[in-house]
Amino acid sequence: MSELPQEFTVGLLLYDNCDLLDIAGPNEVFQFLGLFYGDVVKLSIVTVGGALRSPEPIQAGGITVTPMVSFQNCPKLELLFVPGGNGEGLQASISDDTLLDFLRRQAESASYVTSVCTGGLLLAAAGLLDGYKGTCHWAVVDCLRLFPQVQVPDGYPRWCEDDQRAAGRGIRITGGGISSSIDESLYMVQRIVEDLTHQPERGVEASRAVQLAIQYNPGPPNTPPPGGDPDSVDPQLLERMTGNMSPFHEQVCTAVRQRIDSSA
Amino acid sequence: MSELPQEFTVGLLLYDNCDLLDIAGPNEVFQFLGLFYGDVVKLSIVTVGGALRSPEPIQAGGITVTPMVSFQNCPKLELLFVPGGNGEGLQASISDDTLLDFLRRQAESASYVTSVCTGGLLLAAAGLLDGYKGTCHWAVVDCLRLFPQVQVPDGYPRWCEDDQRAAGRGIRITGGGISSSIDESLYMVQRIVEDLTHQPERGVEASRAVQLAIQYNPGPPNTPPPGGDPDSVDPQLLERMTGNMSPFHEQVCTAVRQRIDSSA
Repeated sequence: MSELPQEFTVGLLLYDNCDLLDIAGPNEVFQFLGLFYGDVVKLSIVTVGGALRSPEPIQAGGITVTPMVSFQNCPKLELLFVPGGNGEGLQASISDDTLLDFLRRQAESASYVTSVCTGGLLLAAAGLLDGYKGTCHWAVVDCLRLFPQVQVPDGYPRWCEDDQRAAGRGIRITGGGISSSIDESLYMVQRIVEDLTHQPERGVEASRAVQLAIQYNPGPPNTPPPGGDPDSVDPQLLERMTGNMSPFHEQVCTAVRQRIDSSA
Repeated sequence: MSELPQEFTVGLLLYDNCDLLDIAGPNEVFQFLGLFYGDVVKLSIVTVGGALRSPEPIQAGGITVTPMVSFQNCPKLELLFVPGGNGEGLQASISDDTLLDFLRRQAESASYVTSVCTGGLLLAAAGLLDGYKGTCHWAVVDCLRLFPQVQVPDGYPRWCEDDQRAAGRGIRITGGGISSSIDESLYMVQRIVEDLTHQPERGVEASRAVQLAIQYNPGPPNTPPPGGDPDSVDPQLLERMTGNMSPFHEQVCTAVRQRIDSSA
């Protein structure tokens, strides 16, 4: 068992049109982990984006965010987190070899390779989900299935863990759409604290402590009945929203097909 | 009934040490409202911060964010949203007359005056919760009670609405801690669409549609039993976390007392 607290750098990828809530979930959750579990992890968070040495501002959900480091000078990450996004920024990233090379390079040494929402498509485009189970936003989960080596579970889980560390192949944790990043990050807190302390109950306790810190006792309006994913909503609403999202779905499928063809 | 779609500007306040998840929730939810309900609202979102004409970058949850507009050149807002924060940035804001004057000015014409987390303390410091019900993060809800004219409901609601429009006094919607901003924003979508269309069922439908878009079918790990607020967690965990948060609690209470004394 290594000495505690362990240095632990979380890297949140930023790219144009990435989603702000996708990043804000883990940023919040990991900050509280570092604050309240300083005896376990000496945690730092870096935002990383762009190929230039000096990071340029990017648009995350329409809000201007400046990464702390770039692909060139990013430190070795213990946890790599890839957020989802949309529009041209996501399409461009699926085919951006510099970005995908950065993900591959960090994934070689990172203990945890993770994503939420369409970030799972970026991990897949980098080949990092080959031979792993993974999921993403419900509206484009069939685009993830286009990658022949990725095993996509049925349904719309909040997150999906595939731990192949016993076989020397690392661990992948991929989240569903957007808001899933909060549930997923609380699970990652549990996983990390358990891994570092070898005390499963401390992992659960840490997750619950952070959940309390962010006052996460979720209660969406108009529930019950539940809502929020295709298995839990009114079929008419699902049909209409699937229609609303079809241009996005088409764009993403096209970008994924081009990526797969170019790597073939 | 006014013509639809109605121009509708959402303003998200930014200040140093404000919380990124507090902003990311409404930013995400209102973006989807604008995208899918363009027949009801012509919605735009601005981030606003700083007294200078040209906004300077601020630190939101440790991440560098640049506001779109400043207090000087912010357009008239239809919905004013005040996020929570912590540390020196929050303390300074509670006594920042320029910031509080900006809130008062916008609140005069805004249809919806809203906050989440310790943002409720800023509304209260500006006098904007005088005579209204309001809530905030569980750890500092007693600091909100220090304001003699604010009515703080018992417990830890996800959000609290006080609609005094029939009496010509406007509406206040205040959220609980941090993650509450998602539930609260989904409720605000319902409220706004109902107000604009006079069709309550369209409000519910819009809220559910956005909930599906962000795949918000929450499922924190290790639940049930639930967690995430003082009424739903293990008493030992609550005691420990209350202890962990006591320096923050003291800072906030001190800042609030100073504010109240200086306005007396």
